[in-house]
Amino acid sequence: MRKISIPVRMPALVLAGVLLAGSALLAQMPRQVIVKSPEIGPDNTVTFRLYAPDARTVKVTGTFVDPMRAIDMVRNDTGLFEAKVGPVASDMYVYTYSVDGVKTIDPANNAVVRDGSYIESRILVPGDWVENVIGVKDVPHGMVSAVWYPSASLGMTRRMMVYTPPGYNKSSESYPVLYLLHGAGGDEEGWISRGRANYILDNLIAAGKAKPMIVVITNGVPSVPSAPAERPLAAANASTAGPQAMMTDKFETSLVKDVVPFIESNFRVIADPDHRALAGLSMGGYQTQKITNANPGMFNYIGVFSMGLFSSFGRGYNKDEHVAQLKALQAAHPKLYYIGCGKTDFLYKTVTDLRALYDEVGFTYTYRESEGGHSWNNWRLYLSEVAPLLFK
Amino acid sequence: MRKISIPVRMPALVLAGVLLAGSALLAQMPRQVIVKSPEIGPDNTVTFRLYAPDARTVKVTGTFVDPMRAIDMVRNDTGLFEAKVGPVASDMYVYTYSVDGVKTIDPANNAVVRDGSYIESRILVPGDWVENVIGVKDVPHGMVSAVWYPSASLGMTRRMMVYTPPGYNKSSESYPVLYLLHGAGGDEEGWISRGRANYILDNLIAAGKAKPMIVVITNGVPSVPSAPAERPLAAANASTAGPQAMMTDKFETSLVKDVVPFIESNFRVIADPDHRALAGLSMGGYQTQKITNANPGMFNYIGVFSMGLFSSFGRGYNKDEHVAQLKALQAAHPKLYYIGCGKTDFLYKTVTDLRALYDEVGFTYTYRESEGGHSWNNWRLYLSEVAPLLFK
Repeated sequence: MRKISIPVRMPALVLAGVLLAGSALLAQMPRQVIVKSPEIGPDNTVTFRLYAPDARTVKVTGTFVDPMRAIDMVRNDTGLFEAKVGPVASDMYVYTYSVDGVKTIDPANNAVVRDGSYIESRILVPGDWVENVIGVKDVPHGMVSAVWYPSASLGMTRRMMVYTPPGYNKSSESYPVLYLLHGAGGDEEGWISRGRANYILDNLIAAGKAKPMIVVITNGVPSVPSAPAERPLAAANASTAGPQAMMTDKFETSLVKDVVPFIESNFRVIADPDHRALAGLSMGGYQTQKITNANPGMFNYIGVFSMGLFSSFGRGYNKDEHVAQLKALQAAHPKLYYIGCGKTDFLYKTVTDLRALYDEVGFTYTYRESEGGHSWNNWRLYLSEVAPLLFK
Repeated sequence: MRKISIPVRMPALVLAGVLLAGSALLAQMPRQVIVKSPEIGPDNTVTFRLYAPDARTVKVTGTFVDPMRAIDMVRNDTGLFEAKVGPVASDMYVYTYSVDGVKTIDPANNAVVRDGSYIESRILVPGDWVENVIGVKDVPHGMVSAVWYPSASLGMTRRMMVYTPPGYNKSSESYPVLYLLHGAGGDEEGWISRGRANYILDNLIAAGKAKPMIVVITNGVPSVPSAPAERPLAAANASTAGPQAMMTDKFETSLVKDVVPFIESNFRVIADPDHRALAGLSMGGYQTQKITNANPGMFNYIGVFSMGLFSSFGRGYNKDEHVAQLKALQAAHPKLYYIGCGKTDFLYKTVTDLRALYDEVGFTYTYRESEGGHSWNNWRLYLSEVAPLLFK
């Protein structure tokens, strides 16, 4: 049954009841009702709750339904709104509420993920997938570092995230590198916060399924240096609109000319094509294609997630040029060219078109078709499948 | 004048208008009104806006008024709510809205900070303080790393943040270390997200005002391994209630027995008392006192922010024991013992009591009294003042 406790929520400045009894601050603190939300049942149903006696309508929208749609939450007579979904498969899901039309996170859930313009409440639904693949297990963990680097080609200092594998600090070994690109609307924190790339790698490495590697996650929007909260004042309002970024080759150039050389001179890296991988999702899958097409032999492992033929994107598409590039890339003998796409992905047709072209040209690739759509649930899946294939 | 544009907001999966025109997804996306919020005027007034035609009341609460109180936002006839504050001094402020009684972040502001149970929208108000002390300047930046370490004394693997100064990766130099502790309700990300410790250090180091140093930021709540979104499933619902943590010496023990040895064997560190500093705010100021009182000679630089005599806290207070500890600490000749407190801090009296005891015992300290209260605005100030005094 529903249980509502009504204690005062204690913020950081509240230290001890004894002390507080006399504090003027106590009187100023709003009383908040604490509800349990979300509550995951033993059958992996998920119940969302919000105590909002003054609200008229509350909805919940999350990745547990694909495609996403708002679900009405039902008010009881105390003002508690509630909705139940599922059972859902073991995975990470994100959600937001809409309170009288205003999008919010769940105030009862401290687990929030942030990536670009996405700020969402998060749940991990138990089961094999979370416990063994994407969860924080009791295994050695790599280090995730926010690193600033000079980008001469973009004329700014930019921020990226670098995963170094367990033991990196204490060893003198050099490692291969996977460069991992995000999609439009995201930023350099996305593959960590929403992609859980670090925990996926920790678990694969601990199980002996993936080689220890460095993972480099850039910001793929060339007009900004970094995630919103980490910007110089002058760049605070810079546009992060992803689609426009696709109209230029600026990011692609900076990855090749700035990012790779920086990593190879600031981290212990095996700096050759057999120890370089590049993968990206959506816009990052487009960028991955552009970079590897233009630089055959630079990356011998390539992953394109949820993105197909780019004839609709960017500056004028030229099939002859594309085919010539693919032939040059094929001649460089990449060891892996992985294409992953969900059956209901809204870019599915572009992926079909890309495969048709590759088949026509005789370009070798591995195709993985999964359930679901254009979602982080799939991108985490693809990473977990690609990482074990790298550097072998 | 107010200007409301009504474009469709584009999420990550929206890639190019051409492609989208035929997409079923487009029809499912809610139309959102984009408003400019917050808007910082040339006079450093700040205008908060929320488009919420279906909401009855909207309030904004933020650190730009001290002590914080909710400010009513006024609805115009289009459903846009608005409130203006200030002018305010150049600094970082955080705020939340209350929409029909439900606490939310500002959906128009991508700059969000997270720390423990605090998830808040953030503004940086221009001026000397932001541009030269706490902002992201065009200077060499240190690296901020999330690092997991074994805590034998707490029986778990735990997470901390480690700032390594600019050039760390390319040098073979060893550095002094500042250990920095957060307050109740916070976690290991607070000194980065809300404290901006990394940018404060970057700026001080670049200006030659502080020595290059490593900064280690732990999670001070011994019952949890890490920030909410970074926990093993089994610890997802562990209590983070800070005050209870003060009733034990568990965190204090783990800092001495687990954290310092780990740092000194995994980073290039000068491992002696003259190159070890410990500082903390609020609950972390209590822990700083407990640790340095019990371990005289371990840290030769000590900072206690917004916390005074702990006779009201923790297990039974024994003045004789406290005085004996202070005498032993004094005999170890720490080079700095800095106490910082705001004039309106609700713990001000405890700080007065602490100073009275130190004066009575003849214990040497530096006292800094600032305007304002128990706030990150002050803790950033104290860090910016203490860092230049360290390791000289």
